[in-house]
Formats: sequence, structure tokens, C-alpha cells
Amino acid sequence: MMLLGSLPQLSAFQFNIVDNMFSLTVATMGAAAIFFFAARSLVAPKYRPALMVSGLVVAIACYHYFMIRLSWQSAFGYADGSFSPTGKGFNDFYRYADWILTVPLLMVELIAVMGLAKEVARPMLTKLVIAAALMIGLGYPGEITQDWTTLMVWGMLSTLPFLYILFILWVELGKSLATQPPSVRSLVSFARLLIVATWMFYPIAYGIRGDSLPGAIPGLIPEKSGLGVVGTQIGYAIADITAKAGFGLLIFFIARAKTESMTDEERAEQMKAAAVMA
Amino acid sequence: MMLLGSLPQLSAFQFNIVDNMFSLTVATMGAAAIFFFAARSLVAPKYRPALMVSGLVVAIACYHYFMIRLSWQSAFGYADGSFSPTGKGFNDFYRYADWILTVPLLMVELIAVMGLAKEVARPMLTKLVIAAALMIGLGYPGEITQDWTTLMVWGMLSTLPFLYILFILWVELGKSLATQPPSVRSLVSFARLLIVATWMFYPIAYGIRGDSLPGAIPGLIPEKSGLGVVGTQIGYAIADITAKAGFGLLIFFIARAKTESMTDEERAEQMKAAAVMA
Repeated sequence: MMLLGSLPQLSAFQFNIVDNMFSLTVATMGAAAIFFFAARSLVAPKYRPALMVSGLVVAIACYHYFMIRLSWQSAFGYADGSFSPTGKGFNDFYRYADWILTVPLLMVELIAVMGLAKEVARPMLTKLVIAAALMIGLGYPGEITQDWTTLMVWGMLSTLPFLYILFILWVELGKSLATQPPSVRSLVSFARLLIVATWMFYPIAYGIRGDSLPGAIPGLIPEKSGLGVVGTQIGYAIADITAKAGFGLLIFFIARAKTESMTDEERAEQMKAAAVMA
Repeated sequence: MMLLGSLPQLSAFQFNIVDNMFSLTVATMGAAAIFFFAARSLVAPKYRPALMVSGLVVAIACYHYFMIRLSWQSAFGYADGSFSPTGKGFNDFYRYADWILTVPLLMVELIAVMGLAKEVARPMLTKLVIAAALMIGLGYPGEITQDWTTLMVWGMLSTLPFLYILFILWVELGKSLATQPPSVRSLVSFARLLIVATWMFYPIAYGIRGDSLPGAIPGLIPEKSGLGVVGTQIGYAIADITAKAGFGLLIFFIARAKTESMTDEERAEQMKAAAVMA
């Protein structure tokens, strides 16, 4: 929960662009959830858990963006042309609650679709989940602080597990490329790039806010201009849409390509599985 | 319903950590419900009822935590830096309504996945359901009292059926271990431990509150510090997440392992069942 009075006054444009971005995100996540659950029947049984987990990730995000929007609307009050803080504060915790639940699931989703052997997948997943928890837990104190130095320190600490996760994914996905059918290879290497590209939004969005805090090194954003808050919220929303709905869509394409490139033996085995699990 | 004025004044941090914990619980239970219902198609027909009941348990909990959160928000009003009781009270009954519905279902869920013979399962379930009703009914008067002695007396009485349930589950699950396929055995013995470990949260959370009541033996928690209420609510939320969502996930893993370790005859039989139920 942001401290009282920590929110700047916003212009009608600034308030509404964030409010509308939140609504757009709710709609996107909700639609993605329906699609991923329905699309399970379009892939072989062994890839269905990956689609289910994709569906869970965006369903959880849909709930949190709905609550984030309500909190945004209660945090500001309209009066003669601009929006001033009501004193109720804006609840940043929704975002961190969302990440605590969805980031580990994103790892599960990726590993599920790669079809790695259990003895490889298990320890890798454990490392990734612990790193994700550290990344999110260390980021939160910086998110709710009103002090530039505190934000920087926690931001830096949180960046270490962040880079560790990206490193592991980059290396492990790279290794697995060889074992993937040709039609899937390009999709998997695109998935690698997408993860790195979209995750880069998060530290940027995290930092932008700091630029408008008292004591910040004067940067692009004038203090209390509201651009820090607006930039952070829009940045997180774009990053979440790409990293959850966009990434889930890529997982679906990978599952689909793998289903189509199955050997006859694999196909026969999957038919048996489908017969029991239909 | 807590008696008027019985709630202490809370700091913004105390109020918000409980409020956020409730939201996190709503999200977790809701996501778990979607997962358990969708995951029915990942297990053989004979294990699907267990997953359906797991889904019901967390769906009921999702509803109750949503209402608990609304009650929490209406029980306190914000004024200059802290949250004071509005006098509307905090409705503890949601929690007991939730338990009355979900604890018997948790028993059904466990027995369904164990695949015990009907003549064993029926009487065992009857004993467990009666004990669960007693446990919850006897606990409630202590939950809503403002008198330390009353809390202790009802707490003790409620502990007797509580221990009886744990004893039955421990013994019966122990017996059934031998009849389980090797791949499932470790999961079932983990389930036994998980039940005992997570259920232990409940008496602790129940008691913590008492420590801040008038007449309580001076304990760790200073009277009216708010730590009793905060500790109780967070303790119950953690216990419910583990005992419902966490336990349901374990039930899914057991069902999945049993599906994979089916003999050819079982598989053929389950295929026939699936063909009819597809």
C-alpha cells in the first residue's frame, strides 16, 4: 500500500490512460484464459497441462487487474479538471500477489511444453521457483518506498535473481533446441527472445517511478509530474500482457507444432492416453 | 459475529497485511478451483470424482474469503494514519460456514482418491464427518467469545474430535499404504504428514487471539495490540491455502500417479468407462 500523500496529482488524461489500460488488460487476460482452456482439445494429451497452466496464469492476472483498477479508481478523486489523491492509497500488493502466483506457473508452463525429462525438469524448476520468489520478495520493499535510495537498493537486489532466471532459461532452452523437431526450433528460439525482451520492461517500469521521487537524481521526469506513476503502471500492464497472454499464445503454437510433428509411435501412444483421459 | 467494540485499533500496516492476505487467498482458491475442474481430464475416470470434490472445496473457500474480506473492510474505518473499529464487527461465521461445508468434502476427496473398498470407506467416512461437525460446532462459541476462559473451554472440547480425525486418518492411510502402487506410496505418506502439519495451524491461530483478550494469562501478545486478531486471520488464511489448495494439488498428483501406474486390465476397463463418459 502506497503511503498517504505519496501519489501525485494527475491530469484527467494521465488518470484515464492508466484506468483504460487496466480495463484493456482485464479484457485481454480474460479472453486469453477462455482461449487457453478451450484450446486444450487442439493439442495432444501430453501438451494439455501446459495450456491449462497458461490459462491459470492469465485468469489470475485478470482477477488482479480488475482489483488493481478498482484500487486506482478509489485512490484518486476528480475535482475541477484534475485527479487528486483521496488518501486511500493505491494498492501495489495486488501486482506482487499476482507475480508470486503466476511467475512460478510461467516456469511450469514453459517446462511442460518443452517436454524435458523429469530428472532434468525437477531440479531446474526448483531453482527457478526459488529465484522467482526471491526476485519478487526483494522487489516489493522498493516498490512501496518513497525514498529513492531504498528503491535503488532493493531494485538492485531483486535484479540478481531476475538475471539468474533469464540466464537459466536462455541456456536451458538453448540446449533443448537440438532435441526439438525442426518445425518447433524457430518457435522455441523465438520464445527465448520473447522472454528476455518482455521481462526487460519490468526493471524499466520499476525504475521510472523512482525518477519522480524526492531525492532522485534529476532525470527525464520532473518531480511529482505524475509521469513516474503513469509510466510505471502502463509499463507493467504492457509487460504483463506480453509475458502472460503473448507468451501463452506462443506456448500454444509450440504445443500445436509438436502435436503435428509427432512420429507414428508417439501418435499411437497419445491416442492410448487420449482414450483413457478423454 | 464479533461483539461490538471487541476489535482493537489497527495500524495501517496491520489492516493492510490482513486485507492483502485475504485477496491473495481469494486468487489462490479461485485459480485452484479452475485447475481442479479442468484437471479431471488428466486422470482416469475413476479418479475424477476426487478432483471434482477438490474443486468444490476451493470454490467454496474462494467465495467465503471474498466475503470475509468485505467484512474486514467494513469492520474498520481509516482515520489519521490508523484503522479503528466501525462497530459493524467482523463476521467470523463465514469461516465456520466454510469449514462446515469443506471439511467433510476434504474427507470425501481423500477417501475417493485412495480407492478404498466401499465397505471400508462408508463407515470411516461417517465417523469422520460426524467428528468434523463436532469439531467445528464446538469451536465456534470460543471463536466469538470475548472471555479467555470460555475460549479455552470450547477450544479444548473442539480439540477432542480434531485429534480423533487426525488419528483415524493417520491410521487408515497408514494401513492403505501397503495396497498402493510403489510410485504412489511416497505421495500418500506425504499426504498423511501434510494433513497433520497443516491442521496444526488451526488450534494455534484459534489460540493466538485469546492471548489479547482481557483476563488472558499475560503472553507474548500485549493486550489490544491488534497482533492477536492479525495473527489469527493470517494463520487461518495460510492454513486454509495449504489444507485446501495444497492438499488438493497433492490429491491430483496421487490421481495422476495412479492413472499412470494402471495395469493393462485396469487401463482397458478405464478406457471403456471413458468411452461412455467422454
